[in-house]
Amino acid sequence: MTQTISTPQQIPATVDITDNDQATVDTAELGELLLGRWADIRRTARELAGRPELHKIEGLTHHDHRLRCSDQLHYLVENKAVHRAFPAAFGGDDNHGGNVAGFEELVIGDPSVQIKAGVQWGLFGSAVLHLGTDKHHEAWLPGILSLEIPGCFAMTETGHGSDVASIATTATFDPATDEFVIDTPFRAAWKDYIGNGAIDGRAAVVFAQLITNGVNHGVHGLYVELREADGSFKPGVGGEDDGIKGGLNGIDNGRLHFDGVRVPRTNLLNRYGDVAADGTYTSPIASPGRRFFTMLGTLVQGRVSLDGAAVAASKLALTAAITYSTQRRQFNGSSNLTEEVLMDYQRHQRRLLPRLAATYAASFAHEELLEKFDDVFSGRHDTDEDRQDLETLAAALKPLSTWLALDTLQESREATGGQGFLIENRFASLRADLDVYVTFEGDNTILLQLVAKRLLTDYAKEFKGVDFGVLARYAVSQAAEKTLHRSGLRRVAQTVVDSGSERKSAKALRDEDTQRELLSDRVQSRVAELAAVLRGAKGMSQEKSAALFNEHQNELIEVAHAHAELLQWEAFSRALQQIQDPGTKEVMTRLRDLFGLCLIEKDLAWFLMNGRLSSQRARTLDGYINRLLTKIRPHALDLVEAFGYGPEHLRSAVAGGAEQERQEEAAAYVRRRRASGDAPIDEKTLLARSAQDKKARKTGKTQASSAAK
Amino acid sequence: MTQTISTPQQIPATVDITDNDQATVDTAELGELLLGRWADIRRTARELAGRPELHKIEGLTHHDHRLRCSDQLHYLVENKAVHRAFPAAFGGDDNHGGNVAGFEELVIGDPSVQIKAGVQWGLFGSAVLHLGTDKHHEAWLPGILSLEIPGCFAMTETGHGSDVASIATTATFDPATDEFVIDTPFRAAWKDYIGNGAIDGRAAVVFAQLITNGVNHGVHGLYVELREADGSFKPGVGGEDDGIKGGLNGIDNGRLHFDGVRVPRTNLLNRYGDVAADGTYTSPIASPGRRFFTMLGTLVQGRVSLDGAAVAASKLALTAAITYSTQRRQFNGSSNLTEEVLMDYQRHQRRLLPRLAATYAASFAHEELLEKFDDVFSGRHDTDEDRQDLETLAAALKPLSTWLALDTLQESREATGGQGFLIENRFASLRADLDVYVTFEGDNTILLQLVAKRLLTDYAKEFKGVDFGVLARYAVSQAAEKTLHRSGLRRVAQTVVDSGSERKSAKALRDEDTQRELLSDRVQSRVAELAAVLRGAKGMSQEKSAALFNEHQNELIEVAHAHAELLQWEAFSRALQQIQDPGTKEVMTRLRDLFGLCLIEKDLAWFLMNGRLSSQRARTLDGYINRLLTKIRPHALDLVEAFGYGPEHLRSAVAGGAEQERQEEAAAYVRRRRASGDAPIDEKTLLARSAQDKKARKTGKTQASSAAK
Repeated sequence: MTQTISTPQQIPATVDITDNDQATVDTAELGELLLGRWADIRRTARELAGRPELHKIEGLTHHDHRLRCSDQLHYLVENKAVHRAFPAAFGGDDNHGGNVAGFEELVIGDPSVQIKAGVQWGLFGSAVLHLGTDKHHEAWLPGILSLEIPGCFAMTETGHGSDVASIATTATFDPATDEFVIDTPFRAAWKDYIGNGAIDGRAAVVFAQLITNGVNHGVHGLYVELREADGSFKPGVGGEDDGIKGGLNGIDNGRLHFDGVRVPRTNLLNRYGDVAADGTYTSPIASPGRRFFTMLGTLVQGRVSLDGAAVAASKLALTAAITYSTQRRQFNGSSNLTEEVLMDYQRHQRRLLPRLAATYAASFAHEELLEKFDDVFSGRHDTDEDRQDLETLAAALKPLSTWLALDTLQESREATGGQGFLIENRFASLRADLDVYVTFEGDNTILLQLVAKRLLTDYAKEFKGVDFGVLARYAVSQAAEKTLHRSGLRRVAQTVVDSGSERKSAKALRDEDTQRELLSDRVQSRVAELAAVLRGAKGMSQEKSAALFNEHQNELIEVAHAHAELLQWEAFSRALQQIQDPGTKEVMTRLRDLFGLCLIEKDLAWFLMNGRLSSQRARTLDGYINRLLTKIRPHALDLVEAFGYGPEHLRSAVAGGAEQERQEEAAAYVRRRRASGDAPIDEKTLLARSAQDKKARKTGKTQASSAAK
Repeated sequence: MTQTISTPQQIPATVDITDNDQATVDTAELGELLLGRWADIRRTARELAGRPELHKIEGLTHHDHRLRCSDQLHYLVENKAVHRAFPAAFGGDDNHGGNVAGFEELVIGDPSVQIKAGVQWGLFGSAVLHLGTDKHHEAWLPGILSLEIPGCFAMTETGHGSDVASIATTATFDPATDEFVIDTPFRAAWKDYIGNGAIDGRAAVVFAQLITNGVNHGVHGLYVELREADGSFKPGVGGEDDGIKGGLNGIDNGRLHFDGVRVPRTNLLNRYGDVAADGTYTSPIASPGRRFFTMLGTLVQGRVSLDGAAVAASKLALTAAITYSTQRRQFNGSSNLTEEVLMDYQRHQRRLLPRLAATYAASFAHEELLEKFDDVFSGRHDTDEDRQDLETLAAALKPLSTWLALDTLQESREATGGQGFLIENRFASLRADLDVYVTFEGDNTILLQLVAKRLLTDYAKEFKGVDFGVLARYAVSQAAEKTLHRSGLRRVAQTVVDSGSERKSAKALRDEDTQRELLSDRVQSRVAELAAVLRGAKGMSQEKSAALFNEHQNELIEVAHAHAELLQWEAFSRALQQIQDPGTKEVMTRLRDLFGLCLIEKDLAWFLMNGRLSSQRARTLDGYINRLLTKIRPHALDLVEAFGYGPEHLRSAVAGGAEQERQEEAAAYVRRRRASGDAPIDEKTLLARSAQDKKARKTGKTQASSAAK
């Protein structure tokens, strides 16, 4: 879809927000829309996650938390919650999107369960499934599915997390014994932060540089047994416990090292690369770069599910915080008798409602990501281009949703004050657990750089084949090796944007077209500017081109972030079109507008500096947002009710109505005292009356002063 | 100091950053400057906090953590670390600033120790000292100091935290028995989140509405015994355990309720209000409002020490993160042989160095706050105006430093990746503990509103005596009752700022004058605009004026935030003048410039919309900041070394040099393999050579291709 800048029009007279206070939200319809394509699986998963068996128990030592979490994974198996993505031959449903939808809801019970299950079936099992072939599936999938084989996904090393291509573990083929020899030649090569690594893992898919006949064919995965049945390490295998972490302490993360560990040649997961008995290497993909990224691409499931789990956590936080905020009162403002409800304070609305809007945006975007994921992994739409688009979309959305979750959880904690700090109210617990979501499955900063690289290569074929420093080595290099295509996720404007001209969007800011125009233009203009600056890298030495990219690294990441925001905004806008009920559509449109306008406000300087908004128009933004807040506020409870999480999920005192009960008790007491006539009189009131009496006497009017009893 | 807007001048030619790369930082001089007036006490406190006895042990149950923390408080007593602020007659030094300087360093060991000590001596003991009189001091201070009487500061209630004036606990005088009867008449009145409340507290200063002869004289403090020696509650006293919190689990927070609890009349801490045997109330302060705020004002110590503790935690985080980032490498950029150091990435610099600059600013501002605190509490400068200035300064700085600490800890955690998530590296642990620092001792949002009220009343006497809705009821009401003064902390410009005119700062952005002008103008203009809008509240009904203020609440808070930033910037600038060494001064000036320019960048839209910066000048900001980053980066290690925290404080693997060791081991291994000639050849390299050979053969030139072994 080509984005073009519309021609300037007359600025219309000020149009205020439609004062239709009759609009109400149909929470049932909205809830169904949010549940998405795999609504039934989500419902099933939520029922499961709502059971006490799958809840987090706070305050356990990490030892006890790990034991509980291991048991909880067995509970998942017993309740048939783990097979969905696997082939029918193994008892699965070949349902990829549905599988992720089901797993991400587990975060509501205990994020450690969600992640540990993700390690077992989303990473370890998926690696065997997608990187292995039939004999591997038959040998190991049943045990992986039944949990007979708890396993590890041993990719990250202490020395290399983000730069996977440079991991140092080696798997060297020994034709004499028809075995691979696995080694971690120095400390930095040790596998690290490996879930199930410290205790539970019996086997692992170990990623290593595959070396045969003196040639290093790059990173491949091999199945390696780690432990005996009694838990002791197999010969040559060793490890350490990572110890206590900032969160997710239900998972036994550990380090693994290998010293001459031998595995049969057939343990190589050989879908994309194989070694024959004489050591000859073959692969269906000729290019080592493409091969590597194709293999990594099959493991995008983890990133997709983190996006969904982060959204779920945000929903939980806002449901609790907004519920509380419609009950909690503090300070007499408009009335001396009753205190103001928190949710009626402008600042409180500013804190919570834009995050509510962003969570809706992230939720709709996630659902689209899930559908694309399912399209690819089902085989319905799985060209290289589709896979690349999926990779880029996941790389764009996961950073925003995970950062949003941390931000929303923290703001919700602060907005609920001291109560929010009690662990029973979940905010602090979820926040600590979700902290590392911005780091694993692709560090957010690195992912955004991947998106930036994609935007550049989409924009200008000059970047095809440019081997520029930092950016190229972790980005989707196959994009650089293919003919430039324009069928990808975003088609950048054909016309070069003139950043110097005064082009002001003339329609009202709240118009959907205006928002789209401003947000799209922002991405396109900045990509074009960057492309113009970075074009010079083509002829440079490696050192110079790396320096050039580094000088613009911050801007590259900001552009990618802007692009991701646009993707979220567009998903929200597409979702609006699916809403039938007019009242709901109206409220949701305002919420989408709030999202869009807050995005613009956050980057208002860019729009002003680059002539996209005049100072005059820009100055209307704050007031408009404030008015939107007051219009949305009456619907806040409905909007979080539509998320569909109940008390069994929230398990949060602030969300349970206790605040309202306490207030009613207090108010009843005060009323009784007043009615009884024996309430004390405030000194201030007494002094005020004395002052009045004194004044009255001075002016010659006498008035009997009566002291209230 | 009157702030006026300088007349526009000619825009000078572009002046670049002085390319004096010879500048070095004298970390000894800088360190001494940072330690401030009570450097020796800080050194003593740091030595103490560095001992294993005062360290946090991660992973304990909250039960065990509480036990350890209780013991640690005794350790403090044994090491004579708790007396400093108390009178000489009780073994103290009457040293108020020094006392806070000492206590805030304890956060480095375990924030629970710092806070529990703060409860005991900074709140409970201080309340007895400052609100009580001689007989109270004699009766209880020795036991408080020796820890014979562990105590509580029972002010906050479940229903009222921020609005202290509205707490519901009552203390009703019974002349028949010469006793006060303490009651919490409903659930919301229960004291809540009370440190020492769940287990250790033997007594409490309980804040209650003082009622005698049918008149409620407002909030006063009374000494109430809570528990017997065996830990059971005294008659009429009850409570609950708050349970596990998001952090600070070394403190036994609990709830307390009182049902007809009787205490002798003389248990009223009667410095500011007394009740005679016949129930007559007297007070040296006639106005109930002023009386209340005077009493609260004596307890500003807690807020001041939180400001310092937050700064210390930020310093710790940055020391570890920056140290690690100068060692950690990832991705080949400029060289295929060595990977790039994280600290050389522009984005990484953007993430850490502005926070380093902000931490320096907060540190210098804190030292000034400490000096002002000491001036007031020593009696040297303790007029009402001085006290009010101190209150406002603390209310401005505490929000910024505590939010900064959370932000810096989180960014440091993310910047150190997976390693940062291991609890041994402190980031996640400190962050969880410091979370509630933005809420207690004055919720940050409420504090900023207090500052906003002060800015308005300083600006225009129209606000004197206006009883406007929400804002008035929790703000420093005595300001509204006094004659307008201009000797306060900030003298707002005499001239009304014309917000419509195009007044551009003509000097270079990096000039100190320019930064001051922009940042000051921002505050003054916005205060003036708000005053103009809110002036209309004067004649309005309570309901209408509350609504008017609510419509501008967000802007009020933003202005206060801008004011606090200006205070930090000015403190940084004053500190620069104290630096002797030229190289240090130069580097620190750049750091200060980075701070100032980032403040401007963050609010760039305002400067653009209001004609303070042209688009042209604004567009230079990003590039200038990036250049500043590269200039500061070489000094980053020195700048954190100057903070003065050693391994016994950091106790962080990422700060310890392990990363560097691992890299050197890895690099040595790679060199050995290459030298030995038996390293495998990369498939990519092989393919590239094949392609070259193929090309050579095509062109008729033959070359023997040699397969490397």
